[in-house]
Amino acid sequence: MAETTFTAEPNRHDATTVSLIDAPLSAVYKAYTDADLYSQWWAPPELTVRVDRFEPVTGGSWRIVNVDADGNEYAFRGVFHEVSPERIVQTWEFEAMPGHVSLETVTFEEVDGKTKVTSHTVCQSIEDRDGLKDSGMEAHAPVGMNQLEKVAQSL
Amino acid sequence: MAETTFTAEPNRHDATTVSLIDAPLSAVYKAYTDADLYSQWWAPPELTVRVDRFEPVTGGSWRIVNVDADGNEYAFRGVFHEVSPERIVQTWEFEAMPGHVSLETVTFEEVDGKTKVTSHTVCQSIEDRDGLKDSGMEAHAPVGMNQLEKVAQSL
Repeated sequence: MAETTFTAEPNRHDATTVSLIDAPLSAVYKAYTDADLYSQWWAPPELTVRVDRFEPVTGGSWRIVNVDADGNEYAFRGVFHEVSPERIVQTWEFEAMPGHVSLETVTFEEVDGKTKVTSHTVCQSIEDRDGLKDSGMEAHAPVGMNQLEKVAQSL
Repeated sequence: MAETTFTAEPNRHDATTVSLIDAPLSAVYKAYTDADLYSQWWAPPELTVRVDRFEPVTGGSWRIVNVDADGNEYAFRGVFHEVSPERIVQTWEFEAMPGHVSLETVTFEEVDGKTKVTSHTVCQSIEDRDGLKDSGMEAHAPVGMNQLEKVAQSL
């Protein structure tokens, strides 16, 4: 199990997830930048994932749809500001709430053969940050990071 | 002269510029989405502007270089998350400070034949926001908005 902490202080625009993944940095980075691998870990396990677009390069775009058991679709999209082993910086928008965009920065650091993943998200408003936190970000953080670890360990 | 206010409360990630531009919304929007027009108003007047890339569409990228009298270059780049008359959402990075990215959201509203422009910027950290504010954002806001008004009025 990956050790994961989620931090979202009150009255701030940002939230941070830090996880120590028991896999090499190259494998973790691959799990972030390969559409098939990414779709295996990013969503809650009760949802299926359809990747409509995934261009993990600087200037690329992405659109990913989560589908629940009843066929309801939850679409997310954004653009990649930077994709490099140093950091991945991308925008996020839940299409059902247009105009609410967040900026995520993921950094990777090798620590004793493991990989420390820091995901920092900043929202346009404190209310958006609170909404994101309470609508699944906080609950999903350890689940997603465990899934990421499994995918990275399989490589 | 455009009426411009700049707000950056202490200990926050964001800053907001609001300006009432005495020109139609269509002209203001064009001044934001045409490379030649944009380069006429975005920079401080003592700098010349070179547009290396300007793709003002959802998913597009941009890179603009300001050049001072001594030939020193100050390059900025980012990606467009959304470009529509409703809002322009884009990332910003000063290339001399890699890894410090901000997210800007510009909205346009018609008010009695004028155009209210609201530019909201959120940074990855409070320190970045303070740095941006003090390195020219606050001082340039009214200058840039006046330049924008002139360009929009010329259309």
